[in-house]
Amino acid sequence: MNGAKSLVKTLLASGIDTCFANPGTSEMHFVAALDQVPGMKCVLGLQENVVTGMADGYFRIARKPACTLLHCGPGLANGMGNLHNARRARSGIVNIVGDQATYHRPFDAPLTADTAGMAQTVSQWVRTSVDSARLGRDAAEAVAAARSFPGQIATLILPADVSWNEGGVVGEPVPAPASLPVDGNAIENAARTLRAHGADTLILVGGTAVLSDAHPWLWRIAQATGATLMADFVTAHLSRGRGRLQLERTPYVMEAAIKALQRYRHIILVNAKPPVGFFAYPGLPSTQYPPDAQLQVLARADQDPLPALQALASLLNAPEVAIPDPGPRPAVATGAPTPEGLAQTVAAVMPEHAIISDESVSFGRGFYKFSHAAPPNDWLHLAGGAIGDGLPVATGAAIGAQKQRRVISLQADGSAMYSLQSLWTQAREKLPCTTIILNNSKYNILIGEYANVGATPGDTAMSMLDLGNPALNWVGLANAMGVEAARATTLEQCADLMQASFGKQAPFLIELMV
Amino acid sequence: MNGAKSLVKTLLASGIDTCFANPGTSEMHFVAALDQVPGMKCVLGLQENVVTGMADGYFRIARKPACTLLHCGPGLANGMGNLHNARRARSGIVNIVGDQATYHRPFDAPLTADTAGMAQTVSQWVRTSVDSARLGRDAAEAVAAARSFPGQIATLILPADVSWNEGGVVGEPVPAPASLPVDGNAIENAARTLRAHGADTLILVGGTAVLSDAHPWLWRIAQATGATLMADFVTAHLSRGRGRLQLERTPYVMEAAIKALQRYRHIILVNAKPPVGFFAYPGLPSTQYPPDAQLQVLARADQDPLPALQALASLLNAPEVAIPDPGPRPAVATGAPTPEGLAQTVAAVMPEHAIISDESVSFGRGFYKFSHAAPPNDWLHLAGGAIGDGLPVATGAAIGAQKQRRVISLQADGSAMYSLQSLWTQAREKLPCTTIILNNSKYNILIGEYANVGATPGDTAMSMLDLGNPALNWVGLANAMGVEAARATTLEQCADLMQASFGKQAPFLIELMV
Repeated sequence: MNGAKSLVKTLLASGIDTCFANPGTSEMHFVAALDQVPGMKCVLGLQENVVTGMADGYFRIARKPACTLLHCGPGLANGMGNLHNARRARSGIVNIVGDQATYHRPFDAPLTADTAGMAQTVSQWVRTSVDSARLGRDAAEAVAAARSFPGQIATLILPADVSWNEGGVVGEPVPAPASLPVDGNAIENAARTLRAHGADTLILVGGTAVLSDAHPWLWRIAQATGATLMADFVTAHLSRGRGRLQLERTPYVMEAAIKALQRYRHIILVNAKPPVGFFAYPGLPSTQYPPDAQLQVLARADQDPLPALQALASLLNAPEVAIPDPGPRPAVATGAPTPEGLAQTVAAVMPEHAIISDESVSFGRGFYKFSHAAPPNDWLHLAGGAIGDGLPVATGAAIGAQKQRRVISLQADGSAMYSLQSLWTQAREKLPCTTIILNNSKYNILIGEYANVGATPGDTAMSMLDLGNPALNWVGLANAMGVEAARATTLEQCADLMQASFGKQAPFLIELMV
Repeated sequence: MNGAKSLVKTLLASGIDTCFANPGTSEMHFVAALDQVPGMKCVLGLQENVVTGMADGYFRIARKPACTLLHCGPGLANGMGNLHNARRARSGIVNIVGDQATYHRPFDAPLTADTAGMAQTVSQWVRTSVDSARLGRDAAEAVAAARSFPGQIATLILPADVSWNEGGVVGEPVPAPASLPVDGNAIENAARTLRAHGADTLILVGGTAVLSDAHPWLWRIAQATGATLMADFVTAHLSRGRGRLQLERTPYVMEAAIKALQRYRHIILVNAKPPVGFFAYPGLPSTQYPPDAQLQVLARADQDPLPALQALASLLNAPEVAIPDPGPRPAVATGAPTPEGLAQTVAAVMPEHAIISDESVSFGRGFYKFSHAAPPNDWLHLAGGAIGDGLPVATGAAIGAQKQRRVISLQADGSAMYSLQSLWTQAREKLPCTTIILNNSKYNILIGEYANVGATPGDTAMSMLDLGNPALNWVGLANAMGVEAARATTLEQCADLMQASFGKQAPFLIELMV
């Protein structure tokens, strides 16, 4: 058995059954092993940022890692933007990066690069396997690292000769390290704060604390103490809709965030980080919380928040209490698209347990308020700020849900252009993905940011901020990649197209002119 | 004057007048400065690998660096594939990477990344500017680094506060370090070898030694000594066509390369590296030259080869001799596309001083033999092996030639999908680019490599190697990005479409079914 075969068998034995791939020559023995050992679903992406973004989306929905197959340092580099996002989303991914044979590396052939150096910038775990007999064990440890709570980026660099040499040994599955339990002191401190200052306390939640299992406990704690619940702006995945908490996120705009947080003297962090500005601005602080606020950590990002929330509710004697009804499901809005109207329309028509991949950027900041009364859904966000993850995440999420759930992308046009190749994979895999391109023909968020500098953009600036010359035709782009598409200029047209698309086991794209 | 303004003024004073850009929030003060200080041509790319690839193509033709404007570590990461290629091509580029404000970095906001660590993997020079008063000087030194012979990647990381703070000082232009002169001993050694063993000697050329200025000297030396001239396979830019040397490249396929080089006992390297395999293969050596061949370096990659070649020719008393005529210009080939026929057809119709961006991958390995009798042209190759540079390089080359020369892309379909957004920039800038997509609907090079593993690809492998399900419609993709396009199935159709395109100051795409 060569190394490559031992690797495939180890991955399968460790529960990895999906491989998002864009292979090259140095990975051919691994590709051949995937042919010879059945069980791995392989999904091609036509650029590596699509590949890594799909793995991120897959993890968020399947709650287990997939592997990627990437070609040498530059192939990894092409996928690093979405690995950055996945790291911020705390998704688990096992990257297999084929590379030059160990003995060939010193010859500095063209594709030779500092693969490990690149990997370090986006991975919590990096190893270059150097021995076919150890490759299986290395892979099992990579999977364990990727499964570390809640998820990590593990990158295994695979020199070609380690892949093709004989002597491979299938690695025993390695259990993921247990998540560090929350200390009793942290729970007692939180209880003390909430009892004494509940009304002045913000419970800021992120990570898995915004998923549905945690909602009843958060609500009990909030109701018993008068504390406010809010979600971290950069949370990657929330459970939303009827039966779930009607959480709002901390605002993106710095002044609005400072205003929203100014009344809290205490902030309890549950899988969330202290809220800070996405960027710094002249004359504004870096932090969004009041300077005199006391911060405490109930659960770190790498600690399971559920037992801590349960213990805290119990310590507070917080009684079970129903999560409030969000009111009637909204109707389809009509007329010209507005953010509110689109949110309402999506809420009106989405199927049960839809997955929303929201990379709406500037257009979508107000979506939440108008979509609480939707059916239960999973709402995914860009967590790392590197635009271009919306379409790949949607694609991977559809595969993570085994094509059984509708995925709706609310997708800004500028960001969509970063990884538009995703549409081809959606067509190839016949994925139930409905993409709504919010076509405003500009980098609108930046035109807003430019205004903060104190002026309106001149011709030179607009040559870098305007996407309208020439106009991108998203129906044409989708069709050319095998995806049916249509344009909508009103919300009722958009609703009709969405509903029609839901009946098909295939992707569909709506170009919504906003 | 804030830092950003001092930066723009320094760049202009240092001779940088073109900026390939995809900006973000942290770069808004720099964007505003570009508005306020006239003189910089700014060109938007819709994904950063397009941006960096354009800068590479620009350098190859303009022979001077442009700057790029990238957004934080992830924006740099998105452009690293083509920076890897540009580094291998020895192109000079000044990357300006906006980043978190110095004081904001510790707060680890979402887009915070190891920007310097990423930059190190693809740059010869990296600096994070930390003081607005020093930014001008830092930028001048970055330009000098980028201009180091023959060209280097210099990355200047620009924290947002260094951009917006007052106290900027325009940097004096810094001269690029002089290229190390070639040692007289190296010239004498080469002369001795050529006198004694000329017929057994290969002069392997790369870098600027394959540009037209060097050709007469190379030819004199070869004619006087009986030595063979050959170009490095991974050379980025050759002067080709009538009046230029009819160089062949070392073959890509390992066995063919070993065979081509086996008779040489001496190899003189002129800006070229010792020829090695693109990849290692089981049972084959890493090096392509015979084990007993003597290698000597006439000019390192960072040494100007021209004075060395002139000195060598003089020492050899090699008389001036005409570069041989390549014979009559070929006619347009007809019928179904073949590599030979396409090369012949391109040679038949290309205008004088065309620029060929050749990322034809497997289809184009035999193009040279059939295109020596073309008019004088510049032929550009992928030097770093990271696919997806052909279209961006073509786009940047057109700008580097101030839109005065036709650029013809010979472009494999799989590679084209990596950076197809380039077409939009071609339309926006009305560039004289004619793209021929070689649509074979598969990663054909990899199907060949798979055969080396000893089998034909099974279903799983083909799920990662076939691009035909669904078929990509390149006419549709081009049109949707504002580029006129048509499909051709014969070489005469391709020739007609090419010739029609040459009359327009606009891009055109031909989807050639091969």
